Amino acid sequence: MYQLRVAFQGEVGAYSEEAAHQFFGPSIETVPYKDLSEVFRAAEKGEVEFAIVPIENSLEGSVTQTFDLLLDSDLKICGELKLRIVHCLIAAQGTDLHSIETVYSHPQALGQCRKFLENLKYKIISTYDTAGSVMYIKEKNLIGAASIASERAAEIYDMKVLAKGIEDDPNNFTRFFALGKQDVTPTGRDKTSIIFTTKHVPGALFKALEAFAIKKINLTKIESRPIKGMPWEYNFYLDFEGHRTEKKCQEAFEHFKDITVFFKILGSYPKAE
Amino acid sequence: MYQLRVAFQGEVGAYSEEAAHQFFGPSIETVPYKDLSEVFRAAEKGEVEFAIVPIENSLEGSVTQTFDLLLDSDLKICGELKLRIVHCLIAAQGTDLHSIETVYSHPQALGQCRKFLENLKYKIISTYDTAGSVMYIKEKNLIGAASIASERAAEIYDMKVLAKGIEDDPNNFTRFFALGKQDVTPTGRDKTSIIFTTKHVPGALFKALEAFAIKKINLTKIESRPIKGMPWEYNFYLDFEGHRTEKKCQEAFEHFKDITVFFKILGSYPKAE
Repeated sequence: MYQLRVAFQGEVGAYSEEAAHQFFGPSIETVPYKDLSEVFRAAEKGEVEFAIVPIENSLEGSVTQTFDLLLDSDLKICGELKLRIVHCLIAAQGTDLHSIETVYSHPQALGQCRKFLENLKYKIISTYDTAGSVMYIKEKNLIGAASIASERAAEIYDMKVLAKGIEDDPNNFTRFFALGKQDVTPTGRDKTSIIFTTKHVPGALFKALEAFAIKKINLTKIESRPIKGMPWEYNFYLDFEGHRTEKKCQEAFEHFKDITVFFKILGSYPKAE
Repeated sequence: MYQLRVAFQGEVGAYSEEAAHQFFGPSIETVPYKDLSEVFRAAEKGEVEFAIVPIENSLEGSVTQTFDLLLDSDLKICGELKLRIVHCLIAAQGTDLHSIETVYSHPQALGQCRKFLENLKYKIISTYDTAGSVMYIKEKNLIGAASIASERAAEIYDMKVLAKGIEDDPNNFTRFFALGKQDVTPTGRDKTSIIFTTKHVPGALFKALEAFAIKKINLTKIESRPIKGMPWEYNFYLDFEGHRTEKKCQEAFEHFKDITVFFKILGSYPKAE
């Protein structure tokens, strides 16, 4: 039986792996990579058919490295997924909450549990991954150490959940993109993501957005990222409702080309629930 | 003699402290705080007259915690400063480059030296501060350890500079805001920063920017930040040229009030060189 391979960043048990299973189903093979740039490269080279990458969190904001990698990649966005993030404080079996002194996790997870951590006055150590920090404290047999990761990560590494739902705000969702090599056909309920750089003239961003406003295209997100080597100039990332093949989008793109110095369609994909 | 007190985040020798001296002169008293939220609180309570906070880096992008703190603070932006960041690899006296195995620094500094670090295959550990990581490896007398910080931090802690200018891109500047309790009067070369939330209707952001375009006000930066508790809705931060007291700005604000549900002026201040 053919098994789809999907790359994700982190260790087995990471939220990105959970997102991959929710998006592509339970029977795929998930392939872990240490860094997001390796995830992109694996999909670009064909080591995997798809990649799943986090793009923004509803509390912490954008995952800026993903935006920067999308700029230089030829991968197409072929889907989006919004995953509810429930963080757990996880330690070795037999540990209790009061013996914890140090907490290890990814900076975004630590940021999402800031109040919980401040109240308990833990020492904080940033790691490159949530599930990876569970694996780390298990392998090193660390005393007085806990990590923040998913309940699934605790199960996978046979560790104990000391507290569940420790995020400051229950409205904690991470939005992921599925990336592949091919464009996706319209479904009638689509979104499109683009990157552009405006000409360096007053009102340029306004004129760029006007291209969409005239066609009554609804923008759902705008994000700016600095252009490397050009201090205080920015690339803009835009999400809007509609498929790249729709007439109104094509017309907006035509208008758009006149007022931008760089313009790239990252993909059109079915809107997540 | 009266000595102005200025709060900054980090340890003595941090880039923020350097920015404070460049902005307010050499004779001020700089007061270190561990976290940016403590820097804000110190200035709000009057423990210091001013605070200096990083807002964006030309390579890594926005310092999102500063944006989030500005949302809830009554402090006014009274100036901006752009500091050229030159990173050094710093270790104990007598160490040489080939003995280094682990590098400690703030995630933004590590990100700015990504290529240098990848080439040398160092183990990376994130810390809360650049200068603080120099102090840490000195105090702990760590072997095979280096940190990334300013040349000034190396001098202060009597440590050795193993390599200078290790940032991936020499166009590495950090923009800082000076924050105080009072509004600043116009100089004729001013900028203004605001925060707003649009109504949740199609085209709302475009209409908001139109208020400025009509008055030929030049926008210099736009940034979006998620609204806590309202997934996929955003506050927008805008910088534009002009002083809040100018007629064209006042008129834009009037127009603006009709199309936003929340609107706050963070301050008007002289434009940095």
